[in-house]
Amino acid sequence: LANRHSIFFISDRTGITAETLGRSLLTQFDEHAFQFIMLSYVDSDEKIENAIRRIRRAHYDSGRRPLVFSTLIDDEHRNRLAQEDFFVFDFFGSFLPALQDALQQEAHPTIGQAHGIHDLNQYLARMDAVTYSLNADDGLRTKDYENAEIILVGVSRSGKTPTCLYLAMQFGIHAANYPLVDEDLEQPRLPSPLQAYRDRIYGLSIDPVTLHRIRQSRRPDSRYASLEQCRREVRLANDMYRNERIPFLDSASMSVEEMATSLMNKTGLQRHF
Amino acid sequence: LANRHSIFFISDRTGITAETLGRSLLTQFDEHAFQFIMLSYVDSDEKIENAIRRIRRAHYDSGRRPLVFSTLIDDEHRNRLAQEDFFVFDFFGSFLPALQDALQQEAHPTIGQAHGIHDLNQYLARMDAVTYSLNADDGLRTKDYENAEIILVGVSRSGKTPTCLYLAMQFGIHAANYPLVDEDLEQPRLPSPLQAYRDRIYGLSIDPVTLHRIRQSRRPDSRYASLEQCRREVRLANDMYRNERIPFLDSASMSVEEMATSLMNKTGLQRHF
Repeated sequence: LANRHSIFFISDRTGITAETLGRSLLTQFDEHAFQFIMLSYVDSDEKIENAIRRIRRAHYDSGRRPLVFSTLIDDEHRNRLAQEDFFVFDFFGSFLPALQDALQQEAHPTIGQAHGIHDLNQYLARMDAVTYSLNADDGLRTKDYENAEIILVGVSRSGKTPTCLYLAMQFGIHAANYPLVDEDLEQPRLPSPLQAYRDRIYGLSIDPVTLHRIRQSRRPDSRYASLEQCRREVRLANDMYRNERIPFLDSASMSVEEMATSLMNKTGLQRHF
Repeated sequence: LANRHSIFFISDRTGITAETLGRSLLTQFDEHAFQFIMLSYVDSDEKIENAIRRIRRAHYDSGRRPLVFSTLIDDEHRNRLAQEDFFVFDFFGSFLPALQDALQQEAHPTIGQAHGIHDLNQYLARMDAVTYSLNADDGLRTKDYENAEIILVGVSRSGKTPTCLYLAMQFGIHAANYPLVDEDLEQPRLPSPLQAYRDRIYGLSIDPVTLHRIRQSRRPDSRYASLEQCRREVRLANDMYRNERIPFLDSASMSVEEMATSLMNKTGLQRHF
């Protein structure tokens, strides 16, 4: 531990933004021995003092000046942090002055931080989409496809379910998915339950070696997981997409976030909140 | 549209970080007529020129200088953007120099941007957790509770399912959930399928009026959605939590992200990636 850089995320709320921003900056550096510590809900004088003590201790223990990514909003708390001998990356402090100029408005520190169930319409839209995705997962309830904004198609374990859930949770999109099983793959045609919805179908492809490794972790040494079977399924699925002119995305090099965002981008779907 | 401020998010990847940054800064201002435009995967000279033309057009159409939140990494593309008459909030440009000093390393623009299925172990951990949450949703497979890291308990529509999915997707946590139905609520005891797992149970509470509004949108004017029924269920659930000394969280003022992060914080659970 002695040689590790301590990386703190500090916020008066969850710290999700501080963490997203900090981790994104750190991707630009070589792999590094970092230790990450989240300090959430730092919203009082007492809590800021406790947080500072904790960061000082990390400094003392490691002998290295800690890095602190902060989305603290309170001016006094931000100033308090700035007095310490830490590397502080202060997001609001860095951008709010210029943003005030751009909008010709003063920032109001109390506004809009929470966006809880309070935002009931947004919450309901999100929940509807999640419920829809759960119910229309894995080829269930194909009669509900009428209400789908997008229907993901692909072989087992190509990433359909998490991508649908992410689309629902993050963008409120009604996303269904349909698994291509052996009998679907026997002919290079769109399976019949999908034919009426051709305009909203998007294929997922994946490289067979990755698929093999994913399936191995599920059912080691099964025929299902064999490289040969994975190669065959992926080839047949891709043939079908091309034959039917179904657009498709290669999921092997992307995270779930990237797949979902790419799909939004390529289909022109609009987020519901 | 003429009076709206155009807000652009621009990135050579998904734009998720640029959007997180921009939206989080904008919460500090009064409600404003913003129009949001996402420009993802701007990763070539041609694409940056197209993006700039698009932003210029917004400037021209609205008569207001557009705001551009950028996570572009490429130096030339960042400089190109800076030459235009936009308000540019340059995330990497603002923080990388100080971060280079702090880490005593040069940033390497090519490193670590992607974290796709490539990171196979992380992907598998995430998928395992999502699959677990789906299978252990809504009181299904209580025998799998042995493998739960946390079991959320609450009345119908108190936010259990989305919180479990978020915990799985974001942190790789194995989260189950159990709905408190009328027969559970008849006695102020922990329902029997839960008794062996007392140490990993967390209650969700909600204010009855919010619950009523959520249920109304599902089954309008049913007994299930009536304010009286919601009041009764919430009171009985809270009585049970107190009686059994089950810690609980009030979900009514929080978003799904906030609930999940609070639970991580309060239980001390560690993210798996």
